Amino acid sequence: MKKLVEIKARCGGAVAVAAGQSITIVNTHGGQVADMWAFRRDDPAEHMSMPHSMVSIDRIKPAIGSVLVSNLRQPILRLTADTSPGVHCMLFAACDQARYRSLGCTGPHDNCADNLRAAVAALAIPLPYIPTPLNLFMNTKFDERGVMRIDPPEAKPGSSVSFEALHDCIVALSACPQDLVPVNGHGCTPTSISYYLS
Amino acid sequence: MKKLVEIKARCGGAVAVAAGQSITIVNTHGGQVADMWAFRRDDPAEHMSMPHSMVSIDRIKPAIGSVLVSNLRQPILRLTADTSPGVHCMLFAACDQARYRSLGCTGPHDNCADNLRAAVAALAIPLPYIPTPLNLFMNTKFDERGVMRIDPPEAKPGSSVSFEALHDCIVALSACPQDLVPVNGHGCTPTSISYYLS
Repeated sequence: MKKLVEIKARCGGAVAVAAGQSITIVNTHGGQVADMWAFRRDDPAEHMSMPHSMVSIDRIKPAIGSVLVSNLRQPILRLTADTSPGVHCMLFAACDQARYRSLGCTGPHDNCADNLRAAVAALAIPLPYIPTPLNLFMNTKFDERGVMRIDPPEAKPGSSVSFEALHDCIVALSACPQDLVPVNGHGCTPTSISYYLS
Repeated sequence: MKKLVEIKARCGGAVAVAAGQSITIVNTHGGQVADMWAFRRDDPAEHMSMPHSMVSIDRIKPAIGSVLVSNLRQPILRLTADTSPGVHCMLFAACDQARYRSLGCTGPHDNCADNLRAAVAALAIPLPYIPTPLNLFMNTKFDERGVMRIDPPEAKPGSSVSFEALHDCIVALSACPQDLVPVNGHGCTPTSISYYLS
């Protein structure tokens, strides 16, 4: 029986996923963005990279079958199933303190970059920088002039995305704590997400 | 009188640009992609960052007036003039040996990542990773499903783009040596570019 692990609203987590194993991320309540990273377990300086993956898959939105690659252009995860409308974002830097300051926050704010740092702190994963995450369920749209619009996610409660690990990986996730701009649904209310291995 | 500096086909270069000064990159022969990076002179670990800039400008194609920001979300360059059709790419990782291997090259191939390394080698700029460049004149297009197409640049001979430095910077450039896929025009023939300060 699959063991569903909850990542609480505004929080992060990390899990080892063996080569051949799958991880499924569930949008428990719908409308929630989940930032996702993957690091090779044998050499965590090698990580899933969006700027390299976009070149490799010739897409800015991954589709079922898309093989995401590392900063060394090696296959790392394959998107194998998606019960959401398939709208994810490969472009956005993870939110961080500087992002919330630019949105007017004067004090600390939970953020995906710090959630990643905390999630991998005990795992000897070097983070000289925060790789651009795969922003699962994030609903960014573009017009023909390149102007971007962010709408709340189209993912419904229970929508999920599955990835097969192509190497032994550490997968990190953050339930995006964005509550100032409509990255998340429910009137910008961050909620929990879940994942399971299979 | 402005001093035009040539960057030979397939090569790179770097130059200090003082705050308030401008750098203009000229597509000498038209049809050539120029990868561009900027590093803060006082702390080169802070560099122009495309994933942060896209969030900041709400665009995936910079426009006149766009302020590009650093990995710390601080303004670093402002696009002030553009005599090309304004088609640039903020998404693609710089080409590197791994990219050319994936395209079938068995031996070494000139590449923008190594051009950056060589250009800044003497400048004490740390490169724990290659930041995603602003791919000037690179003609990437997307359909509504996120599928990407790369066409040869629309830039004509003499087309140019100008940036005002908002900090003392080191700007690095690479005349992209891609000759296998139509990133560059003239039947995938890499050519020189030029720049001048003003």
